[in-house]
Formats: sequence, C-alpha cells, structure tokens
Amino acid sequence: MDRMSEILRFLRDANDYISGDLISTELGISRTAVWKYINQLEKKGYGISKLKGKGYSLVNIPDKLFPWEINRYLHNSFTKEIIYKETIDSTNTYAFKLALTGKPEEGTCVVAESQKSGKGRLNRTWFSPAYQNIYLSVILRPPVHPSKVYPITFLSSLAVYDTVKDLTGLPPTLKWPNDVLINGKKVCGTLLEISTEADMVSFVIIGIGFNINMDAQHTDESIKDKATSLYMETDKTYNRTYVCAVLLSMLERYYSVFLEKGEREICNIWESKALIKGKYIEINQMTEVFRGISEGIDIDGAMLLNINGEVKKIIAGDVLF
Amino acid sequence: MDRMSEILRFLRDANDYISGDLISTELGISRTAVWKYINQLEKKGYGISKLKGKGYSLVNIPDKLFPWEINRYLHNSFTKEIIYKETIDSTNTYAFKLALTGKPEEGTCVVAESQKSGKGRLNRTWFSPAYQNIYLSVILRPPVHPSKVYPITFLSSLAVYDTVKDLTGLPPTLKWPNDVLINGKKVCGTLLEISTEADMVSFVIIGIGFNINMDAQHTDESIKDKATSLYMETDKTYNRTYVCAVLLSMLERYYSVFLEKGEREICNIWESKALIKGKYIEINQMTEVFRGISEGIDIDGAMLLNINGEVKKIIAGDVLF
Repeated sequence: MDRMSEILRFLRDANDYISGDLISTELGISRTAVWKYINQLEKKGYGISKLKGKGYSLVNIPDKLFPWEINRYLHNSFTKEIIYKETIDSTNTYAFKLALTGKPEEGTCVVAESQKSGKGRLNRTWFSPAYQNIYLSVILRPPVHPSKVYPITFLSSLAVYDTVKDLTGLPPTLKWPNDVLINGKKVCGTLLEISTEADMVSFVIIGIGFNINMDAQHTDESIKDKATSLYMETDKTYNRTYVCAVLLSMLERYYSVFLEKGEREICNIWESKALIKGKYIEINQMTEVFRGISEGIDIDGAMLLNINGEVKKIIAGDVLF
Repeated sequence: MDRMSEILRFLRDANDYISGDLISTELGISRTAVWKYINQLEKKGYGISKLKGKGYSLVNIPDKLFPWEINRYLHNSFTKEIIYKETIDSTNTYAFKLALTGKPEEGTCVVAESQKSGKGRLNRTWFSPAYQNIYLSVILRPPVHPSKVYPITFLSSLAVYDTVKDLTGLPPTLKWPNDVLINGKKVCGTLLEISTEADMVSFVIIGIGFNINMDAQHTDESIKDKATSLYMETDKTYNRTYVCAVLLSMLERYYSVFLEKGEREICNIWESKALIKGKYIEINQMTEVFRGISEGIDIDGAMLLNINGEVKKIIAGDVLF
C-alpha cells in the first residue's frame, strides 16, 4: 500500500475530522508530506474538507475504478496488480503487449474508464463510454495445451453470470460462445486473446466489457436494441469498484475449477447454466446459417448441433436469439 | 527497388567497368548521387574497384542476407517484404510484435545474421552464431480456426526438408513435431508462435533456425553431439541468400497446399515423408516417457501412439531417437 492510499485509509476510518499532526506522527512523515498527499487525492477527485484546528475530513469519493478502491473489496490471492488507465486504446491490447514482455504475473489486471478502440470478437468494436461501465483485461498463464484453452471463454462468462445474478437478483442468460444477456440484451461480452507456441500456451488475455451504469441516452445508436446495462435493467446505479472486485473473485473461483478439474468441467457448468441442451438454435457463420437442436458443448468448446438427425460440430459463429 | 539496389544491378550486369556517367544518365540522377550510393555499398561490405576514366567494377559481394540479394533468387508472390537485421534478440519476437500492430501483410519476413536470444521450442534457446546460418521468421495470417493451426509446424518442416534435399541431395529426416535432421543430427528447428482469439487466428509466426555454414569448431559445446549444418554434412559452403530464396519458395508452396487442401493434407504429406507409421518411437513428456508403435498423425497434429494395443493421442513432447 502506498502512502497516498494509507492517508486515504486514515481519512476513511475517521468518523470525523482527523488532524494532519496525527497522520504525520502515525506514518512517520512530515506534515508537509501529508499535505502533499492530500493535494494528490484532491487532484484525483476526492472531496476533502479542511478545517483549521481540526484537520481533514473525507466528504466525497470519486466514481472511478482506482486500484486501491477495488482492493478494498478484494480478498483474493489471484489479483496480483491492478493497472489503472483513465483512457486507453483497448485494455486487451495493452495487456497483450505487457504479457509479451514476460514480466507480469498471472492475475495482473488492466482496467480503464474508457477505450478509444474497444475490441469485440471477430474484429468488431466494443462501445466504451467513459466512467459508466467496466473495461477490464486479465492476464492468465495456464500451463495447458492450446487445444484446451477455448473453454476459458466460458469461464469468464460464468464469472460475469454469477456477478450479475448476485448483484441484481435477475436471471442472466448465457449466449454461446461469449455473451451474457439480461432480458435478451447484451450486458457483457468477453474476448479471449491467446498467445501460444504450437504445443504450449504462452498466455491468455481475458477481456471483459461489462455495462454497468450506462443509460439508454448514452448508448450508441447502433447497439441500442441489442445492449443493456445493470442500471437499465434495475433502475439502480452500482458502485463499479465493488462490481470489479466481485467479478475478479468469481474469475478466480472458476479459473481454479479450470486448473483443478479441467476444461470439461467448465464446459459442463456453462452447459447447465446456459440450459442449452435440447434447445433449438440458429448459428450464423457469415455465409451460412445452421439450424438445429443443441446437443451441448464439446470438450473443446464447440457447439454440437443436431441438424435433421446428424450432429454437426460448430466451432465459431453467432447464435441468433 | 531502391536506388542503391539499382546501382548494384548496373554493377552486376556490367561485365567490366561501368562509368559513373552512364549510371547517372540511365537513372537520371547526379554523378555525386551515384558516388554516394557507391559509398553506401562499400560500407555494406561490397568490394568495388574504381578506375579513373573507366568507372566502377564490382569485385566482391559480402556474405550477408541482404533482402535485395535474396530477392535476386526469389520469384514468388508470397514474400511481400524482407526486413534485415544485423543482430536482433530473436526474429520471432520481432515479427510477433510487428504483427501485433496489424500492419504487415502476410508473407512479411524478418531475417537476421545473429540472435542474442534465439528462441527454441518450450522456452529453450536456439544457438545463433553470426553470418553462418539462417534465422528467419515469416508472418502468416491464415483465415482458419485456432484448432487447425498446429499442422503449420509440419508445413514449415516440409519446406526445410525439400530445401535440404534439393540443395544437398542428402536424405533428411523429419522428427515430430518440428525438427529436420541429417544423419540423426538437428540441422533445422522451427518454432510456431500463434496469436488467436478464442475462435479466430490473428496471425502465426513461423520461426526457422537453419544451420548452413556453421562448422564443428563454432558449434556450442552443449549441442555439439546433437546439431549439424549443411557444411558439416557435405563439406561445401552454401550461398545463404540462395538458400533463403529456396526456403521461402518452398514455404509458399506448402502454405498454398494448407490453404487450398486443408491441414489434413499437410499432415498426410508430413506423415509420408517422415515414414512414421508403424515405427517404434519414444516420446518424452518431462514426467513420463511413452513408448509404442506410431499409427501416424491425427488431424490436429497430435501423434497417435499404439501402446500395447491401446492408441494414445500425444499432443506434445520430445521424440527420442
């Protein structure tokens, strides 16, 4: 914990004003140093009341995804470091380049308030307005063969699914391969980017775009009919740092399942929560649409579709519903 | 073709001395400009004789992998650009970072005279002394699902196999998954590095370390018993730029087969040239050794090993022989 976060903790723990003297004594730094950190906090958007003879009091916390704010709610061993960016091209691109250097540990996380070119699946963009949603990428280094990596898509969707359910009480829907919907509209998408050798995974980036407090007015025209947010579905706003913490804990939980019990177990859990078996679905593959009854998910994450009695394995595409 | 290469062509085409006047007239540049380019060529190691009243004559060509030298022998449509580096950390790492920017076209190639940290499979290093061998990486962007990408390893080995056979007449051996041997010693290794989304390949880097003129004295002690070169096997030195050109043409040929006929076809060709079916082999997987009779290569590139009547699919490991 750095000095600024420590001083923030003093302010937060105090029910009333806390004197600069007390802080400086407790931390063993000068009063001028305390004053400098208070200034830093104000620059970051913290509202701090100053009263002569009484000291400082925290009156307002900015609605930003600062790592130390997320960490307040976070009690996992998985998240090693959270890197915060006000704005960024894409959290996935940033995390990918970082992972290439070989330095960051598994569990390192990049979070941004907005993305200039947020990435969706298949070179699509992800609409990323500032300060309303969560754009987050996590670096994983699973010691598995590349053929076992696809189900990590399901693992990240499951983490979002549980987060939505826990926070809102609403029943989300899982859409193959990588979306989470509420009432038929997309509230979250995940994007897996993978770096491998032919027979070894180097690293995996899980990218999550999660619509939290975005309202209908601030939703891009092009996705208005297809996208929603927690706010739009429940008429409540959410503390995004808390949502981040819940999400990261859920990610850790399902990643442990993946590592301990294998990719088939993740496919099974996804399959059962998606209620996919026996469902009629249509899968769009650019040039072709496949229609049939789902027989579930193959071990590699492919959709098994029974088309007039013949089971076809479909490895990519968009489900229409 | 840039000016310097054009002037080089004039020098090469002339049987005798060629006057600076003639070059400057033909190219429509000043005699001072011609003189500057001649200087540039000399700096790069070209030996140019200058005779008053007669002009310039090319007397010596440096043994370097300059793109324009490789291009002299290259008549494919596949190689879009060759990037030359005197020394580099690793051609694969350089090509990977370049490919991430999204800019370079498929077929772009990075070639280096030496590598400070040449990469082998499974985080091993590749011994990379200067000016003796070929260290080359090619960027591919195959429009296929990640599950179909593994056989590209075979495709690159096949390109090396044909190159060795054509140039030396010796019968090379293919060793699963990614080596080419002569008389039981490694003459070439390939390293596939892949960047994918969950259901789409972004790009593939084929890295090739190919021992050409390295002699026994200059071979690292640690690999002396296991490594060889074209020179060590034939007592001849090879024009490395010509070898590069042959290799790139072969790569293009097999990549076309991969794109047009699919990964199974590549596996089939590899299987038949490796004479693997029915062979007794041992595969080392760090903690375990599998011994059995090979039943060939599965569609995803895995080795099918018949161990006491039961066929086991082995996706990674080192073959011992």
